[in-house]
Amino acid sequence: MLKKYLFCLVCIPFFSASAQNDIMGFTTEHTTQETSLEETFKSKISAQNMEEWMKIMTDRPHYVGTQKGKENAEWMLKQFKSWGYDAQIDTYHVLFPYPKTRVLELTAPTKYTAKLEAVPVEGDAYTQQGEALLPSYNAFSKDGDVEAELVYVNYGVPDDYKQLEKMGIDVKGKIVIAKYYGSWRGIKPKLAAEKGAIGCIIYSDPKDDGYVRGDVYPKGAFKNKTGVQRGSVMDMPLYPGDVLTPGYAATKDAKRLDRKEAPTITKIPVLPISYEDAQPLLEALEGQVAPSSWRGGLPITYHIGPGPAKVHLKLEFNWDLKPAYDVIAKLKGSTYPDEWVMRGNHHDAWVHGAADPISGMVALLEEARVMGELAKAGKGPKRSVVYCAWDAEEPGLIGSTEWVEDHQEDLKEKAVAYINTDGNGRGFLGVGGSHMLQEMVKEVAQHVQDPQTGVSVAARKIAEEQVDGKEGVFKLSALGSGSDYTPFIQHTGVPSLNLGFGGEDSGGEYHTIFDTYTYYKRFKDPDFAYGVALSQTAGIITLRLANADILPFEFKSWYTTVSGYLDEIMKETEKMRKETEKHNKLVADNAYKLASDPKEPFVAPKKEVEVPFMDFAPLQNAMSALKETVNNFDYKAMKELTGAKKDKLNQQLMGLEQVLLNKDGLPRRPWFKHEIYAPGFYTGYGVKTLPGVREAIEQKNWEEAQEQIKVLAETLTAYNNALKNVAAL
Amino acid sequence: MLKKYLFCLVCIPFFSASAQNDIMGFTTEHTTQETSLEETFKSKISAQNMEEWMKIMTDRPHYVGTQKGKENAEWMLKQFKSWGYDAQIDTYHVLFPYPKTRVLELTAPTKYTAKLEAVPVEGDAYTQQGEALLPSYNAFSKDGDVEAELVYVNYGVPDDYKQLEKMGIDVKGKIVIAKYYGSWRGIKPKLAAEKGAIGCIIYSDPKDDGYVRGDVYPKGAFKNKTGVQRGSVMDMPLYPGDVLTPGYAATKDAKRLDRKEAPTITKIPVLPISYEDAQPLLEALEGQVAPSSWRGGLPITYHIGPGPAKVHLKLEFNWDLKPAYDVIAKLKGSTYPDEWVMRGNHHDAWVHGAADPISGMVALLEEARVMGELAKAGKGPKRSVVYCAWDAEEPGLIGSTEWVEDHQEDLKEKAVAYINTDGNGRGFLGVGGSHMLQEMVKEVAQHVQDPQTGVSVAARKIAEEQVDGKEGVFKLSALGSGSDYTPFIQHTGVPSLNLGFGGEDSGGEYHTIFDTYTYYKRFKDPDFAYGVALSQTAGIITLRLANADILPFEFKSWYTTVSGYLDEIMKETEKMRKETEKHNKLVADNAYKLASDPKEPFVAPKKEVEVPFMDFAPLQNAMSALKETVNNFDYKAMKELTGAKKDKLNQQLMGLEQVLLNKDGLPRRPWFKHEIYAPGFYTGYGVKTLPGVREAIEQKNWEEAQEQIKVLAETLTAYNNALKNVAAL
Repeated sequence: MLKKYLFCLVCIPFFSASAQNDIMGFTTEHTTQETSLEETFKSKISAQNMEEWMKIMTDRPHYVGTQKGKENAEWMLKQFKSWGYDAQIDTYHVLFPYPKTRVLELTAPTKYTAKLEAVPVEGDAYTQQGEALLPSYNAFSKDGDVEAELVYVNYGVPDDYKQLEKMGIDVKGKIVIAKYYGSWRGIKPKLAAEKGAIGCIIYSDPKDDGYVRGDVYPKGAFKNKTGVQRGSVMDMPLYPGDVLTPGYAATKDAKRLDRKEAPTITKIPVLPISYEDAQPLLEALEGQVAPSSWRGGLPITYHIGPGPAKVHLKLEFNWDLKPAYDVIAKLKGSTYPDEWVMRGNHHDAWVHGAADPISGMVALLEEARVMGELAKAGKGPKRSVVYCAWDAEEPGLIGSTEWVEDHQEDLKEKAVAYINTDGNGRGFLGVGGSHMLQEMVKEVAQHVQDPQTGVSVAARKIAEEQVDGKEGVFKLSALGSGSDYTPFIQHTGVPSLNLGFGGEDSGGEYHTIFDTYTYYKRFKDPDFAYGVALSQTAGIITLRLANADILPFEFKSWYTTVSGYLDEIMKETEKMRKETEKHNKLVADNAYKLASDPKEPFVAPKKEVEVPFMDFAPLQNAMSALKETVNNFDYKAMKELTGAKKDKLNQQLMGLEQVLLNKDGLPRRPWFKHEIYAPGFYTGYGVKTLPGVREAIEQKNWEEAQEQIKVLAETLTAYNNALKNVAAL
Repeated sequence: MLKKYLFCLVCIPFFSASAQNDIMGFTTEHTTQETSLEETFKSKISAQNMEEWMKIMTDRPHYVGTQKGKENAEWMLKQFKSWGYDAQIDTYHVLFPYPKTRVLELTAPTKYTAKLEAVPVEGDAYTQQGEALLPSYNAFSKDGDVEAELVYVNYGVPDDYKQLEKMGIDVKGKIVIAKYYGSWRGIKPKLAAEKGAIGCIIYSDPKDDGYVRGDVYPKGAFKNKTGVQRGSVMDMPLYPGDVLTPGYAATKDAKRLDRKEAPTITKIPVLPISYEDAQPLLEALEGQVAPSSWRGGLPITYHIGPGPAKVHLKLEFNWDLKPAYDVIAKLKGSTYPDEWVMRGNHHDAWVHGAADPISGMVALLEEARVMGELAKAGKGPKRSVVYCAWDAEEPGLIGSTEWVEDHQEDLKEKAVAYINTDGNGRGFLGVGGSHMLQEMVKEVAQHVQDPQTGVSVAARKIAEEQVDGKEGVFKLSALGSGSDYTPFIQHTGVPSLNLGFGGEDSGGEYHTIFDTYTYYKRFKDPDFAYGVALSQTAGIITLRLANADILPFEFKSWYTTVSGYLDEIMKETEKMRKETEKHNKLVADNAYKLASDPKEPFVAPKKEVEVPFMDFAPLQNAMSALKETVNNFDYKAMKELTGAKKDKLNQQLMGLEQVLLNKDGLPRRPWFKHEIYAPGFYTGYGVKTLPGVREAIEQKNWEEAQEQIKVLAETLTAYNNALKNVAAL
């Protein structure tokens, strides 16, 4: 009786703690320590520090090569050192174009010269810094001097060109004008050039982030008529980073491509403008009226052209090498100094960049400060923690990419994970990343409090999704591109995360002169409460990865997610087959012609090649094998390992994401090596999961699709074998 | 062998002709005659006549009570008589308000006085007729003088008020401003008054029919900044026709309601305005920003208010009785003079009304001219054909309603069907109507040529639907309201059709001073080719109904359609149940609160009453019995009847639609008696099928829904019995 009772005493708490309270990857004993540490960590995060530092870092523009950029890097270096970090600045020498000549004129049927002017706003002194404000331009537009008829191409994405083709409109030899949004901006000149256009103008339509959305700055948060979004148009889906040193670091003496041969500089000149400058151009267009979904918010009838509007676009840049200063600060791990948990945010901005990127940067700094303070108190991380403040993210993820290219071997051997942040604001937690991290992130998100509602940031996110009619389950999105995680995950196979808060901070300030501290205080995260939430979320993720007994990687969610991607592709293929059949029947029946308005131009649609039945079996078999492996995975047994076996297990876990790389990379873009996640070749930032297979199918390249199925199946089989090796331990 | 061969000779042609070539309701012999007659009829229709007559009838405004309206009626009378018709003018004396005072001012925070002006357009002399042009107003707005804060209510339909409630905005004591479209206009002041508003402004947003859609008049077809849509706001879903004589004819000496008690005059003053006049009002609103789907095309941020915009609205009308002149022209049937095939179109317009209604009116006239010519040549109809040119349709279907109310007994005994047309234009055939006419209309539509493509108007319509992703089957839509068929079908149970062409004639001219001959020639149907197609389609339908041996009514399509309505309602109820459950769970979980922006006003949603399981069995049983009856219907045997039996059969067929009436009418609106089709109580023109049941469920009046299921099941059972009686013959 007693014995039995004793048994229960020992046993019940053990199982219940294990089932309910152990942190993933932590023993029960270490769970207690870690929980206490995390509570301390959370309590020390200060909103006041963030605000103070934002003011310091955003008092002047600090784009690549500016004195202010350098000062920021040096100031951060000093901070890191003062917090006990082993910190340094790694400098790369990267091509950074600065606009020398910007001319845009309507030359027919009437005249208009675009103002291209940054107009200061009353009540926001930052916008009154005159020439210090970087002129609006798209970095990595080529130089050019062109004049041609104008064509309005909506967002300038592939579907828009399909629509133009249906309407019998060709952009060959024309200059196109596209709206921002709908894709990453770099896709617009890339596609336009592929279609034969000789110039590209991008403007911000008031429907997307101007007065249609809400009151404009300074009355409200949205884009006023003079606001212009700057931004890179480098062909990042090919490779990001310095355009002259693809795949290797842009060190001082690196061998460089001739600029004329750099494949990621645009093929045609491209310039961003405000809606005030766009309106006279659009108003001068005639020809067919734009389809209803193409119409923006200007008080005009949107015509497509071509012409009679004719424009002259002249652009010249200074093409100089500029130093990019990456600040790298390491807190050495007490137990596993050669296992690195990496945490980064960029520090360069297009102008002042209060939101983008300083709101994320100061959250990272505050996190690092507290981490340093804990270390000084003897509560330092078991694994090394590496904080990175990247330069030159804006022109094309350059600072991070060069650093990652420079440290390939170290990273492949030592990196546990990379946790990225960027701009931050008020609202809901959004996290994208490697799906083997999903359950760990969910656990963390359940233990960080949302500052406005008092529930966890996970619960608030789930409520939002439920009200939106979605499932209401905490999930990671897949990573495409758009911030510094790209070289880590897609080039190097480091498990990565990207996180931030937002959704209640909408506005039109992105990459404009209005992204200032003054604006941030009014519209983004006035009391830095979500800065605190970000520090806490990213910080605890960092802490858990740094202190875990066994790295908290989980494979059932990974399997379910990837399996979902495969289902999606198979369903899409079926849908494509049915749509093609339907389309071909309508062509055969002459239905398109009969349904068309005889007074409008009509281009007879052609029959499309029928979608063949693809052999998905290699993928299905590989996934089936993986299912068995992940179902049999014994996380509990893993936690019972000790000593060398445990170390070896962690080493093997660290290498797993790399198994998902293909050393030859994706077709036509070898820099991108990840077989599960990539930015879309024609979406830019937008992710394409299982990209080799998916993009081949989308492009109707059936032969390549079948090849890529084989390649991916081999990768998945290799991953299964690696997982089985882990399980065997 | 010979015998067998002879048998075949007789037999094969008979069956094959019967299966493939006989016109519905015609014997093989009569099919040949009818086909030849129809070819002659089609060949005689003249576009030139239509154009000439349109010029005559639209040279000045001809709204109710004008000299020009009277002249048009008298001119048509003369025409009908010259074509051999027994024609007369039936005059009713109907209340018709004419605007005496129209004041709309923004009184705070800034001042603006609405122009409310008809602005002439260069190149269109009709628009330059100054004071002859009827001032813009909404007929049957009450007189009023109100001043209050303004609230923007989107389209002012029930869903919009639900949204306002969610946002914590009350219109009580306010003046609302609603956009045209989204429902029949009369719903807007009706709902606004129900919600406590004291005034209503309706404007045409450029997104709906102005510059967002296309170039504006005179450059293009869409509404320019001064265009105002006139129109009735009488509460027609209660009863149409003269507001003072509900349910009986407005003869000279009829007993009339006191105007103050007339239930179909609005409860609050209402005025339509242009977008030029609306913009200063909308711009002066503050408060929450309108949800994205509410935003129009003006270059402003749409705020909802209330206030600070305050407006003063003062309206006074002359409330006089005016004569309404219905022209009724009969061509006596050779065989069945007491069976009437009725064909109508209205002749009154808000201003010149080239499209609405004269494009349909002249097609009717041309049809009648040829019909008369054929009769003179000995090829007159077997049944009587009655052509009607209605007056006073625009203010509320008044001319037709009074006439129908005046001729209830005759119609119930003699009317075979009523075929309505109204405005017409270039494009695709659209037909709504009693579903027992569907197959007949389909047959006709397969034998009228589309003037632009050369295929049949049925084939073109089907191609359009297929390209739109629909089924591609020729179907009749269900009739709600909006033209003169309403008193025929919904009050009297006369099988009705409404038809017209359109879809390639979009513009913003509807009920404005721009609906002129000049405009029509440029944008609607420049060569009157679709006028010809309309004359041919409506004319052949009329001819077939007039000459058929057995009336070409068909019940399988009817059954399938009505059965589809029932399925729809049952599915909607299930959907409502699931949505209510989901909503209540979200309320219980506090998800709405958690997902809401704490900086925006939040109104906690309440749990909703759960949707009970309704007993649909009486309807399912009634439909099941009907299915058997219609499946056993022997159309072939029917055609073999002769003499008195045949006559009796036709008499019984004529009475069938009346069996679908409920003598007590629909709940709270006894004038509307049809149990299958009605205009929605809160949609106006928009149809509600099986309206008793459907609207009770939509309004969550479960008790009434269950009662109405019983009522409808009884009606359907009576219909089944009537059908069985027909079959028994």
